[in-house]
Amino acid sequence: MSAETRKKTATLKDIAVATGFSINTISRALRDKDDISAATREKIKRVAREMNHATNMLASSLRLGYTNTIAVILGDVSNPHFAIMMKEIEEYARKFGYITFLVNTNEDAEAEFQAIQAAQNKHVDGIILCPTQVDGRNIAYLRETGTPFVLIGRHFPEVETDFVVCNDRLGGYQAVSYLIAMGHRDILMLNGPTFISSARERFEGYRQALKEHGIPFRSRLVKEVPATADGCELVLQEALAQREKSPEHGFTAIFAFSDMIAWTAWTCLEKRGLTIGRDYSLIGFDHIQSRLAIPYQLSTISSYKSHMSTTAVDLLLKRIKGEYSENKFGQVFIDTALVEGETVAHRK
Amino acid sequence: MSAETRKKTATLKDIAVATGFSINTISRALRDKDDISAATREKIKRVAREMNHATNMLASSLRLGYTNTIAVILGDVSNPHFAIMMKEIEEYARKFGYITFLVNTNEDAEAEFQAIQAAQNKHVDGIILCPTQVDGRNIAYLRETGTPFVLIGRHFPEVETDFVVCNDRLGGYQAVSYLIAMGHRDILMLNGPTFISSARERFEGYRQALKEHGIPFRSRLVKEVPATADGCELVLQEALAQREKSPEHGFTAIFAFSDMIAWTAWTCLEKRGLTIGRDYSLIGFDHIQSRLAIPYQLSTISSYKSHMSTTAVDLLLKRIKGEYSENKFGQVFIDTALVEGETVAHRK
Repeated sequence: MSAETRKKTATLKDIAVATGFSINTISRALRDKDDISAATREKIKRVAREMNHATNMLASSLRLGYTNTIAVILGDVSNPHFAIMMKEIEEYARKFGYITFLVNTNEDAEAEFQAIQAAQNKHVDGIILCPTQVDGRNIAYLRETGTPFVLIGRHFPEVETDFVVCNDRLGGYQAVSYLIAMGHRDILMLNGPTFISSARERFEGYRQALKEHGIPFRSRLVKEVPATADGCELVLQEALAQREKSPEHGFTAIFAFSDMIAWTAWTCLEKRGLTIGRDYSLIGFDHIQSRLAIPYQLSTISSYKSHMSTTAVDLLLKRIKGEYSENKFGQVFIDTALVEGETVAHRK
Repeated sequence: MSAETRKKTATLKDIAVATGFSINTISRALRDKDDISAATREKIKRVAREMNHATNMLASSLRLGYTNTIAVILGDVSNPHFAIMMKEIEEYARKFGYITFLVNTNEDAEAEFQAIQAAQNKHVDGIILCPTQVDGRNIAYLRETGTPFVLIGRHFPEVETDFVVCNDRLGGYQAVSYLIAMGHRDILMLNGPTFISSARERFEGYRQALKEHGIPFRSRLVKEVPATADGCELVLQEALAQREKSPEHGFTAIFAFSDMIAWTAWTCLEKRGLTIGRDYSLIGFDHIQSRLAIPYQLSTISSYKSHMSTTAVDLLLKRIKGEYSENKFGQVFIDTALVEGETVAHRK
């Protein structure tokens, strides 16, 4: 039921006025508190249903066993990429009468497990999850317990689930091909941990672009940084130190796994008196500036967050409503696009 | 019970190994599913309690009526200020065994009401709320229904509640005094809506600083922008157009209600070929760069997000545990501090 077609909803106050009970009594009756008599509860629920009570949750819950709530579980809400996706999901799910609860896992598998259990204990109708991917146990648990869920941004090649991801391999390929077209051959990749599918696939794109242009792959130019970007400065410092010691570690451009990592690298290089665009070229991934105003434009890859978010909700609602059979999955890859900013210059 | 003193917690798998039941059975028993016999459920719960099961939620819930979950309800998670606070709250609450659920309201009072009800329906132990403040109805409802709650970042001068805010009046005063010390007298304030306490109090600080320096207050130099920063560009455009038409509308510096609005203004001015620090000075509020890497430093006011977040959790836990009486409230004001960046220059 979309917001457009839904009747004007009633608040607790409206129901209080209509029944003559206090808001407190209405609220307690709708939550089935024992201190309200069964007859009163029944009466209030009936009126609430007739008036199409705002949240729809309890009425729906009583009728169908649904709570009209979903959970979003993801690794780092302080990364604008995820925060913007949460907002998009929340706004879009609301159109269908769903309220969205977010749990932040700090990219920690145990916290993720607790978040999944907490969401189940809260009887959400389904979960949108950006999995930590440290191992497959939490996904196995989710499948075993039967909670409808959709993965967003990351997927398990070896496990069948519903998911929506961007075409990470293409994105990595586009980023590195662009750097090569601008004359760069020595490209440092600040990648995420490769147990994460998007890190693996962006790296594949990196290798593919090098290969197509006859540039030999050098593993020492690929460094791993946690997805939360913690410790990014140390990793970059190390790469810069290696570069000073031996020229074969040199690089003129950086491809970062995420805009968060790219901005951290940019900040770190500027602090050392190095200028992005002059001393180094830099390209990120996520295009957080599509929704976050910063006057300096980071060159990046757009993963179409908005499309990804609404697709995740669409897939989850289909799964909740049983529109997919147990062995049929909704799996969507969204093609990425290059966004030219100010941080990639021709190699001198 | 803090993380430090808590025993090593057991996972569902540990309980499965200890009891010989499958993870699925353990999970269903802990969630009181009917398809598991009462005897089995009782046995599994006992073992889980003995092993101090990870989430603690169900054991606690069975013993004390608590769910060890809290909700954070706020206006705009895509604003890094709020996203960082959510992360801080989540991490700190986890140390006390609580899982935090976030609901985003898009600064909409009806969405906020639905979020409060949804959190109550989920039986959270308490709510940390950054209220929309469009009116007092949602707070009245919260008080009436007896759910423990703490306000963060905004408070109602006319309603007694627990809250933690920064000293917004001081912050506004510090920002504008700094601009005046740098020679500016014509200062545009891009304020939030004045039904929000922090917008009102930052504005009071603005007026106080002008007054102390003998600068007459001109209401046409104060413009309102939604807290989500939507439409900020239009408001700024209007101010620039007025400035061109008549010199008495002129301004050389901008004090923005939030870093989000400041960054939006910065981006908008750069787009028009104007340079911050040369053509205009700019100061924001929130210091989002304390946790978000951007190489260009916005001059701003720190509201000590981290301290604010942990204080909110401390106050809420006290309220949940009944350490405050009904008529005693925890009310904390945190003093702000000036953070000098690169965006304020001496007036030429």
